[in-house]
Amino acid sequence: MPDYDLVVLGGGPGGYAAALYAASAGLTVALVEKEKVGGTCLHRGCIPAKALLHAAEVFRTVSHAAEHGVRVSGPPEPDWPAANKRKAGIVNQLHKGLSGLLKRRKVTVVDGFGRLTADGAVSVDGQVLQGRAVILCTGSVPRSIPGMEVDGSSIVTSDHSTNSSDDRLPERVAVIGGGVIGAEFASVYTDLGVRTTLLEALPHGVLPIGPDRDCADVLARSLTKRGTSIHAEARVGSLEHTSNGIVVPYETPRGSDKLEVDQVLVSIGRRPVTEGIGAEEAGVRVDERGFVEVDTATMQTSRPGVYAIGDCVGTPGLAHVAYAEAVVAVEHVLGEDPPPVDYAKVPWVVYTHPEVAWSGMSEAEARSAGFEVEVHKHAMAGNGRAMILGETDGLVKVVAQRGGPVLGFHMVGPWASELLHEGYLAVNWEALPDDVGRLVHAHPSLSEAIGETMITFSGRSLHG
Amino acid sequence: MPDYDLVVLGGGPGGYAAALYAASAGLTVALVEKEKVGGTCLHRGCIPAKALLHAAEVFRTVSHAAEHGVRVSGPPEPDWPAANKRKAGIVNQLHKGLSGLLKRRKVTVVDGFGRLTADGAVSVDGQVLQGRAVILCTGSVPRSIPGMEVDGSSIVTSDHSTNSSDDRLPERVAVIGGGVIGAEFASVYTDLGVRTTLLEALPHGVLPIGPDRDCADVLARSLTKRGTSIHAEARVGSLEHTSNGIVVPYETPRGSDKLEVDQVLVSIGRRPVTEGIGAEEAGVRVDERGFVEVDTATMQTSRPGVYAIGDCVGTPGLAHVAYAEAVVAVEHVLGEDPPPVDYAKVPWVVYTHPEVAWSGMSEAEARSAGFEVEVHKHAMAGNGRAMILGETDGLVKVVAQRGGPVLGFHMVGPWASELLHEGYLAVNWEALPDDVGRLVHAHPSLSEAIGETMITFSGRSLHG
Repeated sequence: MPDYDLVVLGGGPGGYAAALYAASAGLTVALVEKEKVGGTCLHRGCIPAKALLHAAEVFRTVSHAAEHGVRVSGPPEPDWPAANKRKAGIVNQLHKGLSGLLKRRKVTVVDGFGRLTADGAVSVDGQVLQGRAVILCTGSVPRSIPGMEVDGSSIVTSDHSTNSSDDRLPERVAVIGGGVIGAEFASVYTDLGVRTTLLEALPHGVLPIGPDRDCADVLARSLTKRGTSIHAEARVGSLEHTSNGIVVPYETPRGSDKLEVDQVLVSIGRRPVTEGIGAEEAGVRVDERGFVEVDTATMQTSRPGVYAIGDCVGTPGLAHVAYAEAVVAVEHVLGEDPPPVDYAKVPWVVYTHPEVAWSGMSEAEARSAGFEVEVHKHAMAGNGRAMILGETDGLVKVVAQRGGPVLGFHMVGPWASELLHEGYLAVNWEALPDDVGRLVHAHPSLSEAIGETMITFSGRSLHG
Repeated sequence: MPDYDLVVLGGGPGGYAAALYAASAGLTVALVEKEKVGGTCLHRGCIPAKALLHAAEVFRTVSHAAEHGVRVSGPPEPDWPAANKRKAGIVNQLHKGLSGLLKRRKVTVVDGFGRLTADGAVSVDGQVLQGRAVILCTGSVPRSIPGMEVDGSSIVTSDHSTNSSDDRLPERVAVIGGGVIGAEFASVYTDLGVRTTLLEALPHGVLPIGPDRDCADVLARSLTKRGTSIHAEARVGSLEHTSNGIVVPYETPRGSDKLEVDQVLVSIGRRPVTEGIGAEEAGVRVDERGFVEVDTATMQTSRPGVYAIGDCVGTPGLAHVAYAEAVVAVEHVLGEDPPPVDYAKVPWVVYTHPEVAWSGMSEAEARSAGFEVEVHKHAMAGNGRAMILGETDGLVKVVAQRGGPVLGFHMVGPWASELLHEGYLAVNWEALPDDVGRLVHAHPSLSEAIGETMITFSGRSLHG
């Protein structure tokens, strides 16, 4: 007889969500974690990154305080140790809260590196945990560039940038890779006065994959205006350590160049952690890129009773996607028939300044999927509340099937991360633009820009 | 033959929305305004109030900057003229934008005080404008207290507080009336260091009518913690001017007391402006409280072809309700069959710190309407992003019919004004809590608190 209804391997967002949700449904659960529960997201990812992004926001606010009628005696200075201390405090508080919640729900947390055994149990340092079901959520780590040795001080990944113990910010940083993580750190560093260069291999320097181009372009322009130096189609050569820093040579279609910096942040993506977890022994198939293969209808792997969710699966590497997958897996364990995650319509957020957020198809995706589309946009520049905040860079863009439902909702601008959720409902509920446009939005609000965009589909408009 | 398809009397939110929407539908429109287009909302209401509330937010941010890792050389000082200058700049910019938009849509703006004639035309200083239809949107003004003379300097209404030309903030303010306007100004003044006393006649001192009590109580506690002195069930006696200020005597069930202040803000509500607009001559019925009577299915008054919308009607006195009514009236003029405004489900926002926002029934309203209700709440204190912002006072509260749809969405906390709109869709689309809970929210976001609350209705939970 198994020891537990469910054994969860990995205590990141997917793992702790699975454990908490299963426990709330009455299952007995063991959760195996080799470091601290919370995983990358809490300790080296989303949470610390957003705390640093917020420090940058406070810095911007203080810089502009006088215009808003708040007298300060001089320009602000970043206090990097204080920013990192506050960040660490938040991480600790959340870690404590999560640990307490797991305890209250009677989840057995087992410290150590777990691996699957041939008979589908999980072994941790010799201890064997038998589960009626097992969920793998072993996560991911930053990819590195062959030949570029990450040393954690001059050449770093987000693992280090989210956990800096430096007395001060570097003066000059090169960020290699303009995806979500690279763009977020470029935004933080730029706002805190670091000379920041973003080098991206693809044709667009900022968020080359994912968001609608119109939104990514607003972010790229804003970063450029604030001082980020952005180079697209940049191939980075061999780094060279000098007495003053690191020389980064790069080549673009416009020619070759190099720059000297104090730190290089390598942010070219993440790879799944699936080595040494006993997948092969247990008969759990892993694809050639290292992702555990699953049937996303149930999150089950090739071995019945063994599930996999989160970053170790090839689905969008987002904490909340792991949450959603945890719910699907647990409900399938419970013998229920959960609706699968609709990956094409999950919410995406980039917490840069300005924020970029979306759900559903970009205009380009909708067109190439063969839809006859109608598209309307509304700039934040005319929005009263954006003017009040002094944050008018941005737009709302809605992509709909002509005469039909909303296919994609896209936004860049203040609090796009939160405003997204209205659009997210509209996309997932396949609302007609008019269904949303008929519902007048609160005045004055940033959300009015959503209402105005939706109304425009009717051929009429208020302020739009 | 009429001069215009539509003559609009009053250039506030209802009036300009009607004019813009009608023009976008191809109608010829004249808009009559006695002061400046934009009305109370733009010049003496929402917009300037929110600009001052934002100054208070900047002040709070600067005060806490050091904790967030941003060094400033000393505590901030309010620069009241600068705050008012920025506010005036925003108002001017929006006024210019609105005037330009009216012009581009070829709306004829007629300056002057217009009134209805016996044959249903509008006369402005002798000029007669004939319209196929007329929309009245003559707005409202602050109520005053009999015997308390509003002088615009020591005894003021929001008309003055939104347009201060004082060199500095008053040191001591008494706010009479704890409704939306009173609470918002109490929040501004308290945060900017003004000794603020709120006197409210009803049993609850802050937002006595409207929001769910749980939300209003969070605001009341936050104001108290920050230093607002709040007195409920307070009957204010005759004010007395002294050499040092004004003495405000008041009585509560706990006894009599008085305080001396520099300024008294009277915020006990607003009354419709319907005198002298020719209603009687034109056969447009006005009720005993001064509101124009309308059939809210079409916004038509007792005289066919004459409509009324906005604050001069007894519907919720919100700019965006006036917008919605404008759409209904114009579509009826166009011979269409518009869905009427669902007043029980419009969005309400109070822009205090913390913000309060809701749509639909409070728990008490749902119970007294006879529903068997299920209610779940989620505190912002456990929300990662709220912790990052340092704004953990707040909660999400969802009221649903047991086993049925969401009846009311209530929130107090950071950006409730914007997050509301997700709940607003849920309320208006009569979504089941599970319809929203199934859609996982972006992590980390304030909106996750909405998702967590909705999931709880399933009997299971993630972090909730």
